[in-house]
Amino acid sequence: MIAVTGEPTIGDVFGEMIRDAYAVATGIGPRPLAGGRLPRPVIEIIERDDGLVNGAPAGHYLDPPEAWQPYDHRAVERVRGHALDVGVGAGRIALHLQQRGVPVTGLDTSVGALRVCRHRGVRDLVHGTIDQHVADGRRYDTFLLLGNNLGLIEGRERAAGFLAALAALARPGAQVIAHGTDPYGTTDPVQVSYHERNRRRGRLGGQLRLRLRYRLLGTEWFDYLVCTADELAELVQGSSWRLVDVDDRDHPYYLATLQLA
Amino acid sequence: MIAVTGEPTIGDVFGEMIRDAYAVATGIGPRPLAGGRLPRPVIEIIERDDGLVNGAPAGHYLDPPEAWQPYDHRAVERVRGHALDVGVGAGRIALHLQQRGVPVTGLDTSVGALRVCRHRGVRDLVHGTIDQHVADGRRYDTFLLLGNNLGLIEGRERAAGFLAALAALARPGAQVIAHGTDPYGTTDPVQVSYHERNRRRGRLGGQLRLRLRYRLLGTEWFDYLVCTADELAELVQGSSWRLVDVDDRDHPYYLATLQLA
Repeated sequence: MIAVTGEPTIGDVFGEMIRDAYAVATGIGPRPLAGGRLPRPVIEIIERDDGLVNGAPAGHYLDPPEAWQPYDHRAVERVRGHALDVGVGAGRIALHLQQRGVPVTGLDTSVGALRVCRHRGVRDLVHGTIDQHVADGRRYDTFLLLGNNLGLIEGRERAAGFLAALAALARPGAQVIAHGTDPYGTTDPVQVSYHERNRRRGRLGGQLRLRLRYRLLGTEWFDYLVCTADELAELVQGSSWRLVDVDDRDHPYYLATLQLA
Repeated sequence: MIAVTGEPTIGDVFGEMIRDAYAVATGIGPRPLAGGRLPRPVIEIIERDDGLVNGAPAGHYLDPPEAWQPYDHRAVERVRGHALDVGVGAGRIALHLQQRGVPVTGLDTSVGALRVCRHRGVRDLVHGTIDQHVADGRRYDTFLLLGNNLGLIEGRERAAGFLAALAALARPGAQVIAHGTDPYGTTDPVQVSYHERNRRRGRLGGQLRLRLRYRLLGTEWFDYLVCTADELAELVQGSSWRLVDVDDRDHPYYLATLQLA
């Protein structure tokens, strides 16, 4: 075995991070401290396979509606019937829908995130991936992929399977509301050369290969797609879904609506 | 060559980070953006050799005196004669002394940090380590190791050489004002087991092995010491310096004063 200095242990990165962000926000549970006394802000650390690393404060996962971006508000306005919040995170969207009387189920692969959701009052929670959830026999009218979670479609290889799993979970007439970002409006050479490197390898330009880290834990490396609405339209071709609307009022961010064909 | 996914390029991590933090704080120079539009906070990413990673907002390097911790104010009150600010960073301490008419020189190994210092108005700046600076023939009355920079003493192996270099730069009667932190007042198992692992390897408990990362860049791995005042007293034994005062009014943080024997 080759021990690489400073490598993380594989674990529930997102859950530990959300637990700590919740503790900082509410005082519930032990808070991470700097130097044993000053509170330490909870930072999500995202590594990319070209060596890029970014840190982002994690508090936004707990933001109340007043702090949301405008597209989040427009996304929840589009919900009809029973919603599945895919990647429910700390539950900000699910809680809001539930409070408005909308039937909503939160799905996440992070046990720690689901624990925080439950503590915050989200009533209907499922642990697992969309593929695993198909066997549970439950069906939905709206699938929410918010917080940039259109990225879960990963890329060309995964797209068909991802869209098929959503279709298998869908009631007749179901829709997907997905938040995406156009990655190509930048001149930052770090980003432009990453997009070119991806294309040379036969990947979509914004097909990010990432891992998350928090304290001692890391995820495995995974693909997360940042794509234009045009690229999404191509990925949707041949699936059971049709891209019926793109709301890009907050460009480069957009909301894509897919409708079961 | 083994390509390890996501490894950084060795470079001036601190300088790039300080340049961006300065751009965010002042609007001078291009600012890093999230998703091409929203400003991204500048986060310092610190990896430890056990796999621990921490992110901390970098803005504090630019803090004006009103935002400083109390021990920083007490440290600058102790300055006499010509001061060398060891690890001048973005120049917050040097600028303050200079504005009060105190002769001060800023030393740093980061070219990018020195560039920001110069832009902010710090007049006397030197690029290099304390060892390299000895040959320049300049001598000082006060050495400042603030912002936890007592850590630059690294551990048992480096301490004698570090203290000797400071002595070689010293005028008769010179002093060192160093900011340290007692690392042992925690029950966090992540920290406690790291201290134990260090001791099993013959290292001081708080002898951190770290590297910094920012965007595509990383430093080499280096030692940075977090030690108690008692441990410092042992390291100083046999050097040209005497530990003459420990101000621990802000425990676990302290200011250690060394006097040339």
